[in-house]
Amino acid sequence: MASSLLTRQLAVSLQQNLRLAAPGSRYVSKTATKTVSEFEYDTPSMKTAVPGPKSKVQFYFSLGLQNVGAIHFFCNYEESRGNYLVDVDGNRMLDVYTQISSIPIGYNHPALMKVMTNPKNLSAFVNRPALGILPPENFPDKLLESLLTIAPSGMTRVQTMACGSCSNENAFKSIFIWYRNKERGDTNPSVEEISSCMINQSPGCPDLSILSFMGAFHGRTMGCLATTHSKAIHKLDIPAFDWPIAPFPKLQYPLEEFAWENAQEEARCLEEVEDLIVKWRQKGKPVAGIVIEPIQAEGGDNHASPDFFIQLRNIARKHGCAFHVDEVQTGGGATGKFWAHEHWGLDDPADVVSFSKKMQTGGYYHRDELQADKPYRIFNTWMGDPSKNLFLSEVLNVIRRENLLEEVTRSGKALLQGLYTLQSQYPHILSRARGQGTFCAIDACDDATRNSIMMKARNKGAFLGSCGERSIRFRPSLIFKEYHVHQLLNILNDVLTEHK
Amino acid sequence: MASSLLTRQLAVSLQQNLRLAAPGSRYVSKTATKTVSEFEYDTPSMKTAVPGPKSKVQFYFSLGLQNVGAIHFFCNYEESRGNYLVDVDGNRMLDVYTQISSIPIGYNHPALMKVMTNPKNLSAFVNRPALGILPPENFPDKLLESLLTIAPSGMTRVQTMACGSCSNENAFKSIFIWYRNKERGDTNPSVEEISSCMINQSPGCPDLSILSFMGAFHGRTMGCLATTHSKAIHKLDIPAFDWPIAPFPKLQYPLEEFAWENAQEEARCLEEVEDLIVKWRQKGKPVAGIVIEPIQAEGGDNHASPDFFIQLRNIARKHGCAFHVDEVQTGGGATGKFWAHEHWGLDDPADVVSFSKKMQTGGYYHRDELQADKPYRIFNTWMGDPSKNLFLSEVLNVIRRENLLEEVTRSGKALLQGLYTLQSQYPHILSRARGQGTFCAIDACDDATRNSIMMKARNKGAFLGSCGERSIRFRPSLIFKEYHVHQLLNILNDVLTEHK
Repeated sequence: MASSLLTRQLAVSLQQNLRLAAPGSRYVSKTATKTVSEFEYDTPSMKTAVPGPKSKVQFYFSLGLQNVGAIHFFCNYEESRGNYLVDVDGNRMLDVYTQISSIPIGYNHPALMKVMTNPKNLSAFVNRPALGILPPENFPDKLLESLLTIAPSGMTRVQTMACGSCSNENAFKSIFIWYRNKERGDTNPSVEEISSCMINQSPGCPDLSILSFMGAFHGRTMGCLATTHSKAIHKLDIPAFDWPIAPFPKLQYPLEEFAWENAQEEARCLEEVEDLIVKWRQKGKPVAGIVIEPIQAEGGDNHASPDFFIQLRNIARKHGCAFHVDEVQTGGGATGKFWAHEHWGLDDPADVVSFSKKMQTGGYYHRDELQADKPYRIFNTWMGDPSKNLFLSEVLNVIRRENLLEEVTRSGKALLQGLYTLQSQYPHILSRARGQGTFCAIDACDDATRNSIMMKARNKGAFLGSCGERSIRFRPSLIFKEYHVHQLLNILNDVLTEHK
Repeated sequence: MASSLLTRQLAVSLQQNLRLAAPGSRYVSKTATKTVSEFEYDTPSMKTAVPGPKSKVQFYFSLGLQNVGAIHFFCNYEESRGNYLVDVDGNRMLDVYTQISSIPIGYNHPALMKVMTNPKNLSAFVNRPALGILPPENFPDKLLESLLTIAPSGMTRVQTMACGSCSNENAFKSIFIWYRNKERGDTNPSVEEISSCMINQSPGCPDLSILSFMGAFHGRTMGCLATTHSKAIHKLDIPAFDWPIAPFPKLQYPLEEFAWENAQEEARCLEEVEDLIVKWRQKGKPVAGIVIEPIQAEGGDNHASPDFFIQLRNIARKHGCAFHVDEVQTGGGATGKFWAHEHWGLDDPADVVSFSKKMQTGGYYHRDELQADKPYRIFNTWMGDPSKNLFLSEVLNVIRRENLLEEVTRSGKALLQGLYTLQSQYPHILSRARGQGTFCAIDACDDATRNSIMMKARNKGAFLGSCGERSIRFRPSLIFKEYHVHQLLNILNDVLTEHK
């Protein structure tokens, strides 16, 4: 299978990309040499504006079934390869959004194709078990050789889940259970607790809270949504818990140029966190946990310094709150370290770390104390999916074999440097370039300009995502090399040159 | 692949099952002829008590990683076939629980193996898309040829999700959005709504509620959990919304013998529902929707009459509440109809029907009015998984080709009849046999006896699940034939004969 793919890919990569080969304003020096994986294409190749006519047919077709307003275009995943996403009109785009940051090593990676065609793996796909009661024989081994090899510092336990929201919901539940067990000490739950919980009343369903931050995104199920504060469209009309929300630092970029101002801003936010913890305790809704992203993603790619997180972690400890780091978007290598929180340099970075997206499976790691004391407290039918663990295992092999974290660091430097240069060339359009690894972003002067740049870039063969009010977020896969960075920067430069 | 499997299966099925071949008290007449699918085994075959020594090793092994208290034993899914689940010790059990009711057509069904080995399908497994923004070319077609062919009456729209909890959470969100849009009429959300929702406050996050029933199970994420009231272990220590909870009818079985008493009980519950709707409106937390299972499963296999549901549906309509039927466990054919609510005989049975488990993918159908008015209101990264839709498509083909709903009706009759006879033979141990299709249950005299019967049956080769306080629930796959029913009844009879 892999070899037949290869033949086809090689044939396709011989095609000329006339559009990009045409002379034009080229921003980046030609030093970028191609070091691209052999299984993918060389360049974008555009045949129509996007969405093209075939995507529009499909649009119409699906209108009766679902709200399809968010659909960008329809894709041909069979023809997509590596960093290049192919649509139904045969347009081939450099994918810098990767299914909302969830494709780790590009499309149709031969290593993942092999997982599929290995007869030993078939049964894991066909027979989805109820993992919590009837795990497959090799499940503990698979955990040890995949998820446990990348466990965050201080954590030896992991619970898989189906998606990011389920991961955070169950992490919150673990935190609440841990917190109440701590309060109860050695005594068992009272009869009153047991009976009141059945009818949603305290003390059985206690008035505990999770502290979150403005701009945060932790998912959309109702527990998660109560900690999500990125955009009104996610939250409008949905009942929510009355939980405390702290300001997330609004920093100035580049961070190193505004160290003093940023430190002031971070101190202000940390003070507010402590005030809220005290206030909510007084209100009778104690803060059982603090949840935070290492870089706020959906909320606008907002960074904070390692010092901010270190101090926040200490505040959590001081007040007896669990510290939950949500790495659903930042985890899996895009920041140049496997977990973004590794940049803080802590041996004991968190009590809970949740993940999903690039990890293929959802789930969360936690410290020993956070393990539920009884079975069925953290439970559901599937508790994840062993077939996703197979993919993760292979993704980790590829990351190690190809030193992808180093690659990401290298590509990330080139990308951020390129964004700095672009914003200095187009200061009326671009600002606030920022990033870690390839997990980068830049702001446009306004929402309309941001969207226009993205649409034009797409028609030139670079597919991008947005975040916050006027940011473009860069979320390439881990096999995004310097070669691809320069392709992207060339396209962006072309768009900006033409921009009125 | 399928043929090599077949050879292996045939070889294995030639093995003698000495234990079950031994003479003993046989309950059922020998008229049960074997009509079992050719790809599976003939009989259970037990080598050790369960869990056997190999499962125990694994138990120990995994202790450090997770709370494994709910694990029954470790499984060999490669060797499992059809109705027979094989464990790591080589014990082969008739599976009457099917991964908490989630295996539709048995283990390693050749039709599903073919899905896996079809090269055209590989890309759907390897490249998991963000379905809400970049669906694969064939996604609408796949919906039309799978989920839409079995859409409940009155529904032409469906939204896929990853699991049952996510399905219910998003169904609730659709209901809240629909309810508030109805209240707003043609006006847009106010500035105050937009700003207040970002900080979890009304009017943006309104005090709306979902009415649920005692004994209900709708999932474990925090929105769902506020409507789940089956067991304290699920709910203890988790904050909950203050939403109304109505009594679910406590009926006497067999239903036809207690028609008058049951009608009284149902009337009492319906009256309470209306009272709660009025009361919660007065409290400022109007009921936006009513959620109910057609048969309460986890809560103890509690039935209600079609008339109860018809009247409840009318009450919902009268008070402007959406009527949400949760078919996560009942859906997919086990009651003899594809959806359990079809037994009510309504053209307009519900506003929302959610599903998961046997359907392979989670999701919910809904009436046109319940469609979110804007994109990104009902959204997440994956929005389901197209590879699960491929399996569902094939499951539906098998159900149709093999007339499995008729088979289920036939097997279900034999099963229920057998349970009636058993409870008349062992009235001090068993009571309240009940069921629809093979979706059956029976009560033991107490919790300890129930558990003891289940453990003994397991050691004789029948794997069962429990529900409620002292019920055994039968949840075989749709290929559970009369032949298997008699195997099961024989084992149960042996257990009961030996029971002190």
